[in-house]
Amino acid sequence: MSDSMNEAQEMELCFDRLWPLPRSITGEGVRRTHDILSEIIPLTRHEYPTGKKVLDWEIPKEWVVSDAYVVGPGGQRMLDVHDNNLHLVGYSIPFRGGVSLKQLEEHLYSMPERPGAIPYVTSYYKPAWGFCLSHDQRKSLPDGDYEVVVDTKLIDGSLTLSDLVIRGETDEEVLFHTYTCHPSLANNELSGPIVTAFLARRLMALPQRRLTYRFVFVPETIGAVAYLDTHGGHFRKHLLAGYICSCVGDGGVCHYKASRRGNTPADRVAEYVLDRRFGRNYRRRDFSPLGSDERQYCSIGFDLPVGVITRTMFGEYPEYHTSDDNKSLMDFEAMSEMVDILCEFCETHERNRVFINTKPLGEPRLSRYIDYKTIGTIVPDEVTLAAKWCVHYCDGRHDLLDIAERSGVALGVLDEVSELLAKSGLLALPQKREDR
Amino acid sequence: MSDSMNEAQEMELCFDRLWPLPRSITGEGVRRTHDILSEIIPLTRHEYPTGKKVLDWEIPKEWVVSDAYVVGPGGQRMLDVHDNNLHLVGYSIPFRGGVSLKQLEEHLYSMPERPGAIPYVTSYYKPAWGFCLSHDQRKSLPDGDYEVVVDTKLIDGSLTLSDLVIRGETDEEVLFHTYTCHPSLANNELSGPIVTAFLARRLMALPQRRLTYRFVFVPETIGAVAYLDTHGGHFRKHLLAGYICSCVGDGGVCHYKASRRGNTPADRVAEYVLDRRFGRNYRRRDFSPLGSDERQYCSIGFDLPVGVITRTMFGEYPEYHTSDDNKSLMDFEAMSEMVDILCEFCETHERNRVFINTKPLGEPRLSRYIDYKTIGTIVPDEVTLAAKWCVHYCDGRHDLLDIAERSGVALGVLDEVSELLAKSGLLALPQKREDR
Amino acid sequence: MSDSMNEAQEMELCFDRLWPLPRSITGEGVRRTHDILSEIIPLTRHEYPTGKKVLDWEIPKEWVVSDAYVVGPGGQRMLDVHDNNLHLVGYSIPFRGGVSLKQLEEHLYSMPERPGAIPYVTSYYKPAWGFCLSHDQRKSLPDGDYEVVVDTKLIDGSLTLSDLVIRGETDEEVLFHTYTCHPSLANNELSGPIVTAFLARRLMALPQRRLTYRFVFVPETIGAVAYLDTHGGHFRKHLLAGYICSCVGDGGVCHYKASRRGNTPADRVAEYVLDRRFGRNYRRRDFSPLGSDERQYCSIGFDLPVGVITRTMFGEYPEYHTSDDNKSLMDFEAMSEMVDILCEFCETHERNRVFINTKPLGEPRLSRYIDYKTIGTIVPDEVTLAAKWCVHYCDGRHDLLDIAERSGVALGVLDEVSELLAKSGLLALPQKREDR
Repeated sequence: MSDSMNEAQEMELCFDRLWPLPRSITGEGVRRTHDILSEIIPLTRHEYPTGKKVLDWEIPKEWVVSDAYVVGPGGQRMLDVHDNNLHLVGYSIPFRGGVSLKQLEEHLYSMPERPGAIPYVTSYYKPAWGFCLSHDQRKSLPDGDYEVVVDTKLIDGSLTLSDLVIRGETDEEVLFHTYTCHPSLANNELSGPIVTAFLARRLMALPQRRLTYRFVFVPETIGAVAYLDTHGGHFRKHLLAGYICSCVGDGGVCHYKASRRGNTPADRVAEYVLDRRFGRNYRRRDFSPLGSDERQYCSIGFDLPVGVITRTMFGEYPEYHTSDDNKSLMDFEAMSEMVDILCEFCETHERNRVFINTKPLGEPRLSRYIDYKTIGTIVPDEVTLAAKWCVHYCDGRHDLLDIAERSGVALGVLDEVSELLAKSGLLALPQKREDR
Repeated sequence: MSDSMNEAQEMELCFDRLWPLPRSITGEGVRRTHDILSEIIPLTRHEYPTGKKVLDWEIPKEWVVSDAYVVGPGGQRMLDVHDNNLHLVGYSIPFRGGVSLKQLEEHLYSMPERPGAIPYVTSYYKPAWGFCLSHDQRKSLPDGDYEVVVDTKLIDGSLTLSDLVIRGETDEEVLFHTYTCHPSLANNELSGPIVTAFLARRLMALPQRRLTYRFVFVPETIGAVAYLDTHGGHFRKHLLAGYICSCVGDGGVCHYKASRRGNTPADRVAEYVLDRRFGRNYRRRDFSPLGSDERQYCSIGFDLPVGVITRTMFGEYPEYHTSDDNKSLMDFEAMSEMVDILCEFCETHERNRVFINTKPLGEPRLSRYIDYKTIGTIVPDEVTLAAKWCVHYCDGRHDLLDIAERSGVALGVLDEVSELLAKSGLLALPQKREDR
Repeated sequence: MSDSMNEAQEMELCFDRLWPLPRSITGEGVRRTHDILSEIIPLTRHEYPTGKKVLDWEIPKEWVVSDAYVVGPGGQRMLDVHDNNLHLVGYSIPFRGGVSLKQLEEHLYSMPERPGAIPYVTSYYKPAWGFCLSHDQRKSLPDGDYEVVVDTKLIDGSLTLSDLVIRGETDEEVLFHTYTCHPSLANNELSGPIVTAFLARRLMALPQRRLTYRFVFVPETIGAVAYLDTHGGHFRKHLLAGYICSCVGDGGVCHYKASRRGNTPADRVAEYVLDRRFGRNYRRRDFSPLGSDERQYCSIGFDLPVGVITRTMFGEYPEYHTSDDNKSLMDFEAMSEMVDILCEFCETHERNRVFINTKPLGEPRLSRYIDYKTIGTIVPDEVTLAAKWCVHYCDGRHDLLDIAERSGVALGVLDEVSELLAKSGLLALPQKREDR
């Protein structure tokens, strides 16, 4: 990619390459998607073989689509998967034969309430075949005999996902998780993988990081289940915060859906950043079991600190899960701004440390530890102010974000001052990570 | 009772038979009251002998009233207990003799602020005799010599109470508790025992019940103390929720007075039902130590989940504890509606179970456990919705009522769906009852 | 002091004697201040020697001021410490010599925003000398040669503080803490030591006290640190509540700044008294690490129940820390009213006991324990009401103040009734002090 392009332009280029690929929860379209994302960041590929048990699930067969179309009474070819991936119901089983219009109708999906759009339909776990089309087209289908070709295979193959871990000074991790299973849908979901990849590229470019960052690109649900099957124990030990990144492609109002616990570092950091950036112009949602892969991360047995970041919330824009969710909805400048926002999440996590005051009895003599104005003034400068709040609240139970909110002192100032105080020995890191 | 009568008419008939009986905390009037209630439901009689220690109290002597009246200067008989039970101060000791009006006045009770009504006065524990009369009558008493006859006895007898236990599938109990000690007072208190008896009759008629139900008919205070003396340990182990049922005879606004802890299943179920039925047209009261037998159940050492259900609250209607609390206040249709309400309390308790998700790691593959629509739709049907909320919140700390309030899904749907999920093994009952 | 004077007049007399003394954190001015306060109450003097380690600090050298002034180009003597203690920067090191105006300027402190006032400046821990003057005077200084005389010494001496303990029936202590280090400043801070001394005199005059009271007069910061170094363990064991008493000399609105924990008995009592006395006309502040010696008491390692009582808050009136904080700001009647308020704090602590109901199973038969109206009435009298609330809430987790707030019964009535119930054996003191 050219140095002369800005990030938004690079994102658009990436979008245009990913758009036509026939994605599903498995298959070559997914692998080619991961190939393209790997040009941006060094992803590691993981293949989970068909039949492998993962938590309460099993990795399904891999779906191979060679061809799929319908020939109408007049001999015209229609509903061709090569014209639009959405025409074929995802995971359609093979079929070939002549059917009447009436018989065909039982296999057709359209939306009377949005008659010009092709809906997005899948049947991953119930064997079936079907075609999707606009309601307008459906109404114009003539009576007569149709020939159906669904040239697909369900083979013993594997489910593909990939991840990237950028190691920092500590094992504490911040996770970004997104989807690679949606075919020819733009906001939901090419925006998530593109924003996540460009975020990872920015974080890799930083000279150093305190925290470790993990980026996970999976097919929705089964991919998250598979990843948690192998990484759940690791997350329980190391995950500080995680974000599902989905529907981040338009220029709408930001939404943050909280984790099941609702007050984890993930939630507090997201709300701190969004509140400072947008004030009342962002929306917070409580956790609910309807949604995306937060359902997996926040399941009772894991209950991890993972929330969801979106622009306009999934399911809440009329083009959702239809062929109208296409490039015309996308705002690449807004996607680049979303990378800024997520960088700020990361920066806030970097700064949000927990310290212990090593001189807890009485106020320490601050001039021993910090350049402290000692000829009497009434109003303390910002450094002194930050130091004083750290002295009285660094008891291991308040992180710097708590102190920022309580004191009104900017987190950045608290971070710098606490770093100075840690160097001079007044603050120390707690022996063990507090349960947060 | 005739099959052609509706419940309200049956209640009125029952009321008319109970009304004239000379009730007190002990005695034959009480026993005849229990006899009549036993015609509705199969009560078990318990007699606590005079002198028995019960908690910090002692069962008093039994009070026998043969005759009580005053003869005025003109020879006219007045204040005859046979005219109105309220004329004689409850537990009056025997007395016979001539007194001046001035001497008599020291034994008379009337209400200047409600001059037409006879007040209800007792002296259970301080030996005394007295008569109650309307203030109008009192002002008309001529000067002169009066003859007083209080032909009563305090004998070694017993205190009478009765109960009924309707066993269900589990030992967890819901209690309804009411009074049988008030003579010739209608709302406070013939409404309580009548509503409670008809509620019990309805519950007995059900083909099955998950919970066990206990109905207790006692004289106020000493009866509750006696019952807790023998059943306190049982309640500590098994009582899920209890309700004192008093002043439920008029058509006024429902009041619920919470238990001392304030957020027990008793309180949550009552508020859920009353809120759905009446919205803002019911009143909640915090616990206070002024009131009725909730004082006994919620005493510090028991602290049981017992609240109070009333229509117009006791002490808050002008006829309370006077001869004006008579049949004219009663609304038998409203009493039958109160039985409906209490049945709904019971139904809500039946439904409000606690389950544990047996597949807590990740979201389980729901189609394994429930008939689940698997060809992609955006909006889940009600069954799927209920199942998803159960999956994410059945962690042993949330009962179905919590989940109903959090999700907006009706408790009945959650109950049915959780039953299905329990049959298919996805949900299980917790090993031990959580402390609620 | 004359018997014919009222308290406000006595306070004014005391103020006039204390005003001219050259106070600082150490030295003879401080000792003479303690001498005068000792005429009111029997203080015990404590001397902490120079160089002694106290918590994270060290007792500084003692500061001796013989003379300090400047001679101007015209030979006129100016900025003489004997004219106003504020002219000399506190803890100025010795200096003698000729300087140009430009050189002198580097040692001058004035306030352009309050040009008529001399600011109060100290340099306790950074060796320096300097003079303070009004900005008006500074602007009029002619160019030329000045002669500076700072005839001071920093010697191995000691830091002086004093305390008074008035023992009560129990070891539980209420603390009042104030300052003796401010030279020629009226509200901040001659008001604190004067109000505190007169409060102590009033409490000594009481025939008996349940609680022990401690009064501490120290130089700010280093004095509190020194006192906590020797008394911190004692406070951890015995301190029920403490109050920093500062800026209580004007007639402004009362402010209460809460302890770090925010809901200790100190906070609850102060807010109860101030709310009843002033309603919404007082202000509550959360704890912050900017302020006075609450910073020491509420440091993480002590975290004691100590708040701050002021009229107009320190730092929030324009004369603060200038020569305008003088007698013209003082309202001696308001200072006497402040003694009333603090006496009410003490009285409330005296009354705010924790009891345990010894008959927790069921409501006890109250007539056994208290003179209880037993012939039926509807509305209980205040004694019965208080007794009933005690019965249901004296479980060791609610103090009488909790019960007062919950019930609306006056604390004084609860105190008297609980005393009666304790005498009759229904209430008892808990075995150990609850952690509050």
